[in-house]
Amino acid sequence: MGNRKCGKQSFQFENPPVITAWASVAGKKEAEGPLGKTFDITNDDAYFGEKSWEQGEKKMQQIALDTLLKKAGIAAKEIGVVFSGDLLNQCIGSSFTLRNMGIPHVGLYGACSTMAESLMMASMAVGGGFSDNVVAMTSSHFASSERQYRFPLGYGGQRTPTAQWTVTGSGAALVCQKGKGPKITGCTIGTVTDLGIKDANNMGAAMAPAALATIRAHFEDMKVSAENFDLIVTGDLGQLGKEALLTLASREGLDLGGKVADCGTLVFDLLKQDVHSGGSGCGCSAITLCGYLLEKIANGKLSKILFCGTGALLSPTSTQQGLPIPGVCHAVSLYGG
Amino acid sequence: MGNRKCGKQSFQFENPPVITAWASVAGKKEAEGPLGKTFDITNDDAYFGEKSWEQGEKKMQQIALDTLLKKAGIAAKEIGVVFSGDLLNQCIGSSFTLRNMGIPHVGLYGACSTMAESLMMASMAVGGGFSDNVVAMTSSHFASSERQYRFPLGYGGQRTPTAQWTVTGSGAALVCQKGKGPKITGCTIGTVTDLGIKDANNMGAAMAPAALATIRAHFEDMKVSAENFDLIVTGDLGQLGKEALLTLASREGLDLGGKVADCGTLVFDLLKQDVHSGGSGCGCSAITLCGYLLEKIANGKLSKILFCGTGALLSPTSTQQGLPIPGVCHAVSLYGG
Repeated sequence: MGNRKCGKQSFQFENPPVITAWASVAGKKEAEGPLGKTFDITNDDAYFGEKSWEQGEKKMQQIALDTLLKKAGIAAKEIGVVFSGDLLNQCIGSSFTLRNMGIPHVGLYGACSTMAESLMMASMAVGGGFSDNVVAMTSSHFASSERQYRFPLGYGGQRTPTAQWTVTGSGAALVCQKGKGPKITGCTIGTVTDLGIKDANNMGAAMAPAALATIRAHFEDMKVSAENFDLIVTGDLGQLGKEALLTLASREGLDLGGKVADCGTLVFDLLKQDVHSGGSGCGCSAITLCGYLLEKIANGKLSKILFCGTGALLSPTSTQQGLPIPGVCHAVSLYGG
Repeated sequence: MGNRKCGKQSFQFENPPVITAWASVAGKKEAEGPLGKTFDITNDDAYFGEKSWEQGEKKMQQIALDTLLKKAGIAAKEIGVVFSGDLLNQCIGSSFTLRNMGIPHVGLYGACSTMAESLMMASMAVGGGFSDNVVAMTSSHFASSERQYRFPLGYGGQRTPTAQWTVTGSGAALVCQKGKGPKITGCTIGTVTDLGIKDANNMGAAMAPAALATIRAHFEDMKVSAENFDLIVTGDLGQLGKEALLTLASREGLDLGGKVADCGTLVFDLLKQDVHSGGSGCGCSAITLCGYLLEKIANGKLSKILFCGTGALLSPTSTQQGLPIPGVCHAVSLYGG
């Protein structure tokens, strides 16, 4: 019957692509968090041996890619294409990672939704028969994000209670036509949604409406409900964004069945790690997926999850010009192999 | 036989997707150039009626999308997905265009290669059976680019002879499973290539090696040569970048058959318009394709072209940190219907 478009925003596969390998790299604070033991590589050095935080972020992606290839037992030249992006201006974390490696690269920008976005595009490339051994990858870095989006770290600015802490980490997943591992059974492409939130220190609230819209679209397009999943994992809404999502869902009568977990609250201990509303950044959902969730699916502890990557599509320029923060959320349905 | 991966970087379709409609929006300088008459909408106001250049750029994309829908005779809700990106930090030109429109959106970052990149992804979505009525879109704006990448315009900085002029314009193309129009017969995904060029005012030279690598890969993967095309259109290398490409090709023995034209030299009159090495920016190849080239294919004046979008994957941060400029080039093969 072939691949097919489902409803308004979703699609599913004739032969569901398989995530045959995954890898995660994380920084010091992430290693100290509740998921610390699930990451492949951690490093106490925020520079990852490089001269700048931006280059350190690039280094994390290189390590994630190397680790992925080792775990999968394939060579770089066997990669069909890498779909990747990050939060740095002009996505230099991603493009510099692949410099002169001879690997086809499609650059994405989806802010913190990039892990889900790249997985979705990888599944399209593989499921459509256009490529194989396709990598979905992203990264974020606390220090490079702070100085780009907010204040120089040396300024010592106070963080508001609604602020989130950008995860220092990179995650990569290998999507193949055949093999053993979690299957991508369908995806829902997000729409750009905003309800007028303008506080760049409250991105969870800005992204919650997008998460709700995409989960609803996935349910409607795929004719499923919360009952079909063990977990609906958003990320990275943080504690306040997650509460906003639950409130909005309840107000609009969408039953989430108590299944919602958020990568921003999974990756850090919110009481002990001084991260205020939780984790954020492309790396947040990336290392939670590629360190913790995929492992849980592979070993049978989770069987069906809806992975909903959320992104706040703001820039310092749009905020300075007084504009609200549009959000987006892409959903990927993952089933045990 | 289905869609298939060809060689190392390319893919082709069982049923080639069709570009059934296209639209272009351009600024004053572009309207005064050699292709002025081919654009759907032009405007002398650099703000396009908005309060900032960035919002003006967003407005151009909105006009391009509206014009595309009118020309295609479809409603916004019939769009399957929009693949789009731009040069602004965090791609706010693209995401703000689609705010609250209810249209599925996949954000891309490919610098000036975005028109080719978005067309390639649209063809994957359509050719793979995942969606239909898919839009590929991008934009750039001289003034928003200058202040973001170089100096504030009011500073009156002198431009070097190798500098290019960022095109103010937006192009959009509608890719469908069926219909009348130029067909996308195959694509080659670019690799990130750099030979160590560090001069951010000589991006043509930085992108030329990527263009060469992708054209060579397309020829090898698809088993074709320059003879199979009426035109090999790069963009935006500019005059100097085009010369660099021809020199490199000749040195490496790749026969381009005298077929190379560059969007950066087509869109402006280099002798009369004071643009130094030619046009640049995502909008450059976008309006040249969506204003001029697709029309030529549709009316039979061109029958087969290889559209090679080139992008310089630098950011002001990478330049300030002394890093070279990686380039990328994605190629889309377009045949008359």
